[in-house]
Amino acid sequence: MSERSDSDLELYDSPFMRACRREPVPYTPVWLMRQAGRYMREYREVRARTSFLELCKTPELAAEVTVTAVERLNVDAAIIFADILLIVEPLGLRLEFGKDEGPIIHDPIRTAEDVDRLHEVESVESLNYVYEAIRLTRRALSSNLPLIGFCGAPFTIASYIVEGGGSRNYVHTKRLMYTDAGAWNVLMSKISRALVRYLNAQIEAGAQAVQLFDSWVGCLSQDDYRKYVLPHTRSVIESVTHGTPVIQFGTGTATLLELMREAGGDVIGVDWRVDLGDAWRRLGDVAIMGNLDPVALFANRDHVIAQARKILDSANGRDGHIFNLGHGILPETPVDNVIALVEAVHEMSLKSN
Amino acid sequence: MSERSDSDLELYDSPFMRACRREPVPYTPVWLMRQAGRYMREYREVRARTSFLELCKTPELAAEVTVTAVERLNVDAAIIFADILLIVEPLGLRLEFGKDEGPIIHDPIRTAEDVDRLHEVESVESLNYVYEAIRLTRRALSSNLPLIGFCGAPFTIASYIVEGGGSRNYVHTKRLMYTDAGAWNVLMSKISRALVRYLNAQIEAGAQAVQLFDSWVGCLSQDDYRKYVLPHTRSVIESVTHGTPVIQFGTGTATLLELMREAGGDVIGVDWRVDLGDAWRRLGDVAIMGNLDPVALFANRDHVIAQARKILDSANGRDGHIFNLGHGILPETPVDNVIALVEAVHEMSLKSN
Repeated sequence: MSERSDSDLELYDSPFMRACRREPVPYTPVWLMRQAGRYMREYREVRARTSFLELCKTPELAAEVTVTAVERLNVDAAIIFADILLIVEPLGLRLEFGKDEGPIIHDPIRTAEDVDRLHEVESVESLNYVYEAIRLTRRALSSNLPLIGFCGAPFTIASYIVEGGGSRNYVHTKRLMYTDAGAWNVLMSKISRALVRYLNAQIEAGAQAVQLFDSWVGCLSQDDYRKYVLPHTRSVIESVTHGTPVIQFGTGTATLLELMREAGGDVIGVDWRVDLGDAWRRLGDVAIMGNLDPVALFANRDHVIAQARKILDSANGRDGHIFNLGHGILPETPVDNVIALVEAVHEMSLKSN
Repeated sequence: MSERSDSDLELYDSPFMRACRREPVPYTPVWLMRQAGRYMREYREVRARTSFLELCKTPELAAEVTVTAVERLNVDAAIIFADILLIVEPLGLRLEFGKDEGPIIHDPIRTAEDVDRLHEVESVESLNYVYEAIRLTRRALSSNLPLIGFCGAPFTIASYIVEGGGSRNYVHTKRLMYTDAGAWNVLMSKISRALVRYLNAQIEAGAQAVQLFDSWVGCLSQDDYRKYVLPHTRSVIESVTHGTPVIQFGTGTATLLELMREAGGDVIGVDWRVDLGDAWRRLGDVAIMGNLDPVALFANRDHVIAQARKILDSANGRDGHIFNLGHGILPETPVDNVIALVEAVHEMSLKSN
């Protein structure tokens, strides 16, 4: 490791990075999942010229939308514009996005034989466009603004790979788990090893923190999570370059929080279904990210701010709170409410001393 | 009230009814949500001749599929074949089912003006076909087999009425809640009054118990449930004919259980995300229904039975357990596994004395 430069120190001392380490902060840092997205005019203008997947694969554009969102919202962290499913291409699968932006994975993995045809990802070079986007973004961002890299968590990636897209009941995924635990574990291990390389390459390219999106893990019972998911998520988190904070995020995880904590990570992301104070009492010494309902942003501004206030009250000034939504911003969200939210979180949490 | 006949007493003493009252039972009673459904050949044969809505509206056929399921599975209760959305027709809305069986409600209710055009349901006579199906079913069922009537809970009905069908994020529903609490409460009150009449008419026709399906309530935070939903659900449950057990069921309710208990009901239905023993410790003296993951039925028989065993172990022989799935049976479920499940629950829970 090289010695820290001045800009490394600025980043290290930023409110977001301090909160990841549960150190005191001047105000509660805030960023919003999918902050560069369709709800924002600037993003829609870029998308008018290019498809979603092309945008992900064009570093200049990915960096542009990433930075624009940060500047427009005045948030405390950037997250690189990308998609959790990009990793399925090096795994040997064909990825497409439908007109409604829903992902389609061709020839989904349903059997042990299918698992065998998944590639062992020795190199994640084919995702160079992501690292290049990170380098460009890092250069364009203010020197005190951290950039978050990310990937899907093993279960959520597996569910897409097995279902061939989004799902309501995860029948194929759970059937594979239950009927062929061996094949399931090979599948999860192949995904996990690819994710480790991918996350570490993002860190190498300039990401200050990384997030695992386990968006659909809330469909599982505690027993299933413990048996089929926890060891794999843990193996990914343990292999992330030492010193880089890891955020582990999921939705519908009210009964899984302790197990997610066991799987690891410096920050646990929770959704609006759990009271943030309750979650923290259950989780103990870990940072927490969350947890405004994205739909609250469709209300009038007073309601938005009152809800943000409740969340700050629940956090009760405890070190290690990163304000965020409980899931990604929705496409029709009024952008003025998003800007007002960020401002309100900053103002309401400002420490007087 | 007339004096109890012999068959009333037989029903009153059935394992299902005893469990609703938390009285000792010879074995754990079991029935399965959507037990008359597409996974069953006999049902598909009836459906080959008639649409879903026609089936609901033809008492002879509705009774036939209700009774067939009970006989095929050897479950301890029948549930009348119907749909939670039938109530939207007397409310003045047009209901349709798409090719994928998903409901479509035309001209959804989005504003205060829309709420005004919803009918005040003074009479639920237009749902006579449901009561007639109940009468026919009651006549065809063995005299010791209880028949469950049901409706959607106010929130779940409201969400369909506002969204115009199923939803992922409930944006329109929550926006109405947050931006016009007055209109929301009028909407919920109109629905609730209609539901009370409907449930009591089902009881009058011969249902021994009733269930409120609040299938989508798990999208709400605790605060939202308390403020926008609880009083309405409570008003429905309190108005059900005295002496008839009420089951309150929802999915994704891990953080709402105590509030659901506050809303009332003799039995609380929980899904597989919560450990049944934990749920019971939190809920105290109430009967519990659940909680096998419907997808577990896609595994091999040994897995199914092992999962059922775990649930019975969690219930730990406590009086007041009704075995069920955590949500409805899925269309492709292997029927042999369903039959094996019912048999295994009976055998494994049989009291030796």
